[in-house]
Amino acid sequence: MLKDKKEPTKISDLGEFALIEYLTKNIKLKNKSSKYGVGDDAAIIKTSKTQVVTTDILTEGIHFDFTYTPAKHLGYKSAVVNFSDVYAMNAMPKQMLVSIAVSSKISLELINDFYEGLYLACNRYGVDLIGGDTSSSLTGMTISITVIGEADAKDIVYRNGAKETDVICVTGDLGGAYMGLQLLEREKQVFEEVGAQPDFSGKDYILERFLKPEARQDIIELLKEIGVKPTSMIDISDGLASEMHHICKQSNVGCKIYIGKIPIDYVTAEVANNFKLEPLITALNGGEDYELLFTISVKDFEKIKDYKQIKVIGHIMDKDQGLNLITEDDNFIELKANGWNNMD
Amino acid sequence: MLKDKKEPTKISDLGEFALIEYLTKNIKLKNKSSKYGVGDDAAIIKTSKTQVVTTDILTEGIHFDFTYTPAKHLGYKSAVVNFSDVYAMNAMPKQMLVSIAVSSKISLELINDFYEGLYLACNRYGVDLIGGDTSSSLTGMTISITVIGEADAKDIVYRNGAKETDVICVTGDLGGAYMGLQLLEREKQVFEEVGAQPDFSGKDYILERFLKPEARQDIIELLKEIGVKPTSMIDISDGLASEMHHICKQSNVGCKIYIGKIPIDYVTAEVANNFKLEPLITALNGGEDYELLFTISVKDFEKIKDYKQIKVIGHIMDKDQGLNLITEDDNFIELKANGWNNMD
Repeated sequence: MLKDKKEPTKISDLGEFALIEYLTKNIKLKNKSSKYGVGDDAAIIKTSKTQVVTTDILTEGIHFDFTYTPAKHLGYKSAVVNFSDVYAMNAMPKQMLVSIAVSSKISLELINDFYEGLYLACNRYGVDLIGGDTSSSLTGMTISITVIGEADAKDIVYRNGAKETDVICVTGDLGGAYMGLQLLEREKQVFEEVGAQPDFSGKDYILERFLKPEARQDIIELLKEIGVKPTSMIDISDGLASEMHHICKQSNVGCKIYIGKIPIDYVTAEVANNFKLEPLITALNGGEDYELLFTISVKDFEKIKDYKQIKVIGHIMDKDQGLNLITEDDNFIELKANGWNNMD
Repeated sequence: MLKDKKEPTKISDLGEFALIEYLTKNIKLKNKSSKYGVGDDAAIIKTSKTQVVTTDILTEGIHFDFTYTPAKHLGYKSAVVNFSDVYAMNAMPKQMLVSIAVSSKISLELINDFYEGLYLACNRYGVDLIGGDTSSSLTGMTISITVIGEADAKDIVYRNGAKETDVICVTGDLGGAYMGLQLLEREKQVFEEVGAQPDFSGKDYILERFLKPEARQDIIELLKEIGVKPTSMIDISDGLASEMHHICKQSNVGCKIYIGKIPIDYVTAEVANNFKLEPLITALNGGEDYELLFTISVKDFEKIKDYKQIKVIGHIMDKDQGLNLITEDDNFIELKANGWNNMD
């Protein structure tokens, strides 16, 4: 259908119903609980499990910039960031609904690439696209995604269960996505000013952290396998500091986090230095890493300590002791919640 | 919090977390299946029923215009149009997630009014607001709403079950919302050109049809009470003609609809005439009435025939006979699907 066209195809040439049919015609539902997908007033789900439901809205110019974001990556990331919220409840994502509002400048080819990214993520994480909506907008593109996941009620982990002496864990490494974004923004500016093509050699890791993040399904599966249920959990979308504040506020506790134990990749640190930024600050306040921050009971420490993808970074303390960073020479610094706030 | 302020409050003065807390602090979950609402990475639902899930995205300038749409009405309508999709599956709406993306021109007072409208609709229809997202946008406001409903699997009605000889029914009357919109658009233009204030006296009915529609919960309850399960059903968001095409295509049937039986309110007809429009065309192609179009087996005709809120407008025919309008003097005219397509 898209072959032999040199000009981008206008969506208005198709109309809404034909567009939906074109974008969804190859869907095959994979999950037992997905009973009926696209094609009626609503989709149908039946499960004996407890469900978790999360939703995100993403707008062009605020959350993404097509000058350096391929539409396929954007589709992949839009799906994955919602799966990440489901994993943060210790649940498995099963169904997704996707709505897009697009202006006349957005071509059918771009939307097609965006959906390819969505389907790639759905296949990778075992999720069914069961519904959505398409609409026009006066300017740019807005994406809204809702994801429904499943778990046994007893397995669900909230933000509010952290207890004094619990061990604070974080997965992967932090600050990479933020430095990837800084790099892309700088090269965009250079390109606009002097027309120079960017040189990203050696920086693939942080670019991929920003453009095509993964959600930590592997960690949720690992914790289940080794019989560890976190006492609290959250995914790191706004930065470690902000997420730690959420856990402490909702659990009514304090914490201490050892600066020396916060995981930062070599490339992240190198690029941060290059930008005259303190790597620690990018790890604390940079967002969009989609790693998991969770607390476990001290008695579970032995079970997790040998897995290199999980780093122990501190302990939960009494509320009165506040939220603290511990320096290499054992000084306490207040941990402030300077997250990455897209409302700013 | 909003008292004593004369200038509109900027959302950026609050930040995302404070905004969410402000907007959702009074929520009390009403439904047994709503286990946990706003405040974690995801909301929690547990039900033994089958669920229906629907979502809509609405953009400023395409779906709504603040020059004549009060924000509270917009909130109410945004919720109700999604409830309508749930009723169209013969299910009851139970949970709602609401995401908004707003530019800096949108004040906290406007968002507050919008949420008041949402809560009013939730209380009226017995739905819990369990989650959502807030974000900034470069221009205007975009709204995305997802609603989850419940039913017994055996009660769910799809678009694809209409059979030859089935009776075609429609609720309420049609074309009113479309004429309400035409009236508002004309008065907006007059106001912009000559500054004259609009005179809407006697036109309340069609204005309300457009600005503050209701979903037909009453019909779903009535059908259950009298023991009628429709063979197919859809809500009228794009116009009778377009919806009839959906039912016939998915049920693989044809139809005949008697022009003289299509319900049109007196005010709708009067204003249509005033605009030099054929009232029938507004009923066939005008959208946003949110009435129900459904088919029932002939054997159920006796059960529904005395309810004045349900009008019988025609019959399902064999597919080969196509989709037809029958004139007062028994001529057949092809029913075309010129719906109201917001992708145009």
